[in-house]
Amino acid sequence: MKCIKCSENAVISLYRHNAGFCKEHFTEYFHKQINKAAKDHKMFVKDDKVMVCVSGGKDSLVLWHILHSYGLDTTGMYVSLGIGEYSQKSKEKVRKFAEKHGLKAIIVDLEEKGHPIPMLASRTRRNACSVCGQVKRHYFNKVAFDEGFTVVATGHNLDDEAARLFGNVLRWDTAHLGKMSPNLPEDGDTMKRKVKPLMRLTEKEVAAYAFLHGIDYIPDECPMSKGASSLEYKKALNELESKMPGTKHFFYLEYFNLAADRFEIKEENKDKLKKCLKCGMDSYLDVCSFCRLMEKAE
Amino acid sequence: MKCIKCSENAVISLYRHNAGFCKEHFTEYFHKQINKAAKDHKMFVKDDKVMVCVSGGKDSLVLWHILHSYGLDTTGMYVSLGIGEYSQKSKEKVRKFAEKHGLKAIIVDLEEKGHPIPMLASRTRRNACSVCGQVKRHYFNKVAFDEGFTVVATGHNLDDEAARLFGNVLRWDTAHLGKMSPNLPEDGDTMKRKVKPLMRLTEKEVAAYAFLHGIDYIPDECPMSKGASSLEYKKALNELESKMPGTKHFFYLEYFNLAADRFEIKEENKDKLKKCLKCGMDSYLDVCSFCRLMEKAE
Repeated sequence: MKCIKCSENAVISLYRHNAGFCKEHFTEYFHKQINKAAKDHKMFVKDDKVMVCVSGGKDSLVLWHILHSYGLDTTGMYVSLGIGEYSQKSKEKVRKFAEKHGLKAIIVDLEEKGHPIPMLASRTRRNACSVCGQVKRHYFNKVAFDEGFTVVATGHNLDDEAARLFGNVLRWDTAHLGKMSPNLPEDGDTMKRKVKPLMRLTEKEVAAYAFLHGIDYIPDECPMSKGASSLEYKKALNELESKMPGTKHFFYLEYFNLAADRFEIKEENKDKLKKCLKCGMDSYLDVCSFCRLMEKAE
Repeated sequence: MKCIKCSENAVISLYRHNAGFCKEHFTEYFHKQINKAAKDHKMFVKDDKVMVCVSGGKDSLVLWHILHSYGLDTTGMYVSLGIGEYSQKSKEKVRKFAEKHGLKAIIVDLEEKGHPIPMLASRTRRNACSVCGQVKRHYFNKVAFDEGFTVVATGHNLDDEAARLFGNVLRWDTAHLGKMSPNLPEDGDTMKRKVKPLMRLTEKEVAAYAFLHGIDYIPDECPMSKGASSLEYKKALNELESKMPGTKHFFYLEYFNLAADRFEIKEENKDKLKKCLKCGMDSYLDVCSFCRLMEKAE
């Protein structure tokens, strides 16, 4: 296949766009998608202090790489989950990336804090992915608030977000359907704005970008995510995508144009935010879900 | 596996209900599902004159069998599509069923009318399934109106409807999401009420019922439906269902409890119905889509 821009040999073919690209024009395409996402959803404003949530995987490191290259003020934020070798390796990738680019990475180590994910999951008998999400959300919010960041950027890509939308639709989880925005407004004092600049790019495209630009990441999936429903949703969407290219792209991106307004949570229906009696973070209950999780695990 | 009701050997196992049933209790379960659908959605009223759309397949013949056994006033309505041997065989199944039960079947033969589906599809260069749906809808409406039926019943099952909902969601087709009801109200004078009493039962369950009760049907899929997107949607949902039993059931049935109201088409937003200048049936345009299709094919 040839690049549709310059007729050089293509390094990647994108069926949903019916196009192939050489390295240069793939890079151009990739940046265009990020710029379009950032512009359409007004993701960044002047003087933003950006906290980039990084896991050591391709998505978050590519995101950090790019936002930094745009001249934004970025700091990495890594939560070490305490999942054996996987956590060791991924922490190393983050450290090396920060060092190489002269950037700062804040590291929260759950092992040091005495509540690694495997322990929390087994003590509370809950699904590891759900516990992990809750814990990471807590530290993302807390660090962003404590350190005065104005916006939190995560590396969720088109596959992640389409799968999340699909899961929410299969359960008709209207509360979460109302929170799909790739630019979630801040809530209370302690929950900063959250943006997802890779929303228009697939997993495959992000992996290709990392490879072509020498971004070193941990390719392993988290060993605790085996059998996670999000992986089943991705698989189902990928099957459909292979038969009907563009399905995934349309389903996720057109949600915002065609249906998201129907799931908007009206101001008057929103629960009132309080401050958690234990940690002081914003919460809809007297004690926030993170502190309740900690209590349960003790 | 044993029947959960009487501990006899089960003839069918239903994973989504985590249950097995013997013939007697499966039949009881089957009828309960139909009664629940009919009651929840107020499908039938006293003195209804029911037109049952039959294709010769398991769903529509099981439906007719059951509605007749309930003492409802039913007439079959079959559209012979002009698809070679498939149409011949399915027409025979309908005729025999009607004869056996002393019921009347109205037969519209597209071959005799000079516009069989393969011809229409090739002349208009359109997808056969889409052309077929349009033509059948026209004749269903027309016959129901001409013959004074009060309600039109179709054999769509849980798999059919879940797949249709899934397709509408993937395209965020809000107009069709607003018309998912298994009891669609009448529209104008010429579009009668349409109900789907098998909405709570899967394809597998309907096939089992047909087998256990000696209902003879054509097991072949329409030869023109190969590669239809609805089949891909069914496949994707079945994959998920096998990993997470109950997914399909919840997705479709809870739509009506949790989200359908968000896609309701408000009275003031509805286009005004006119009478088609050619055939006189209700239409949103001067000439209805069926008559436009006929013009195009000529």
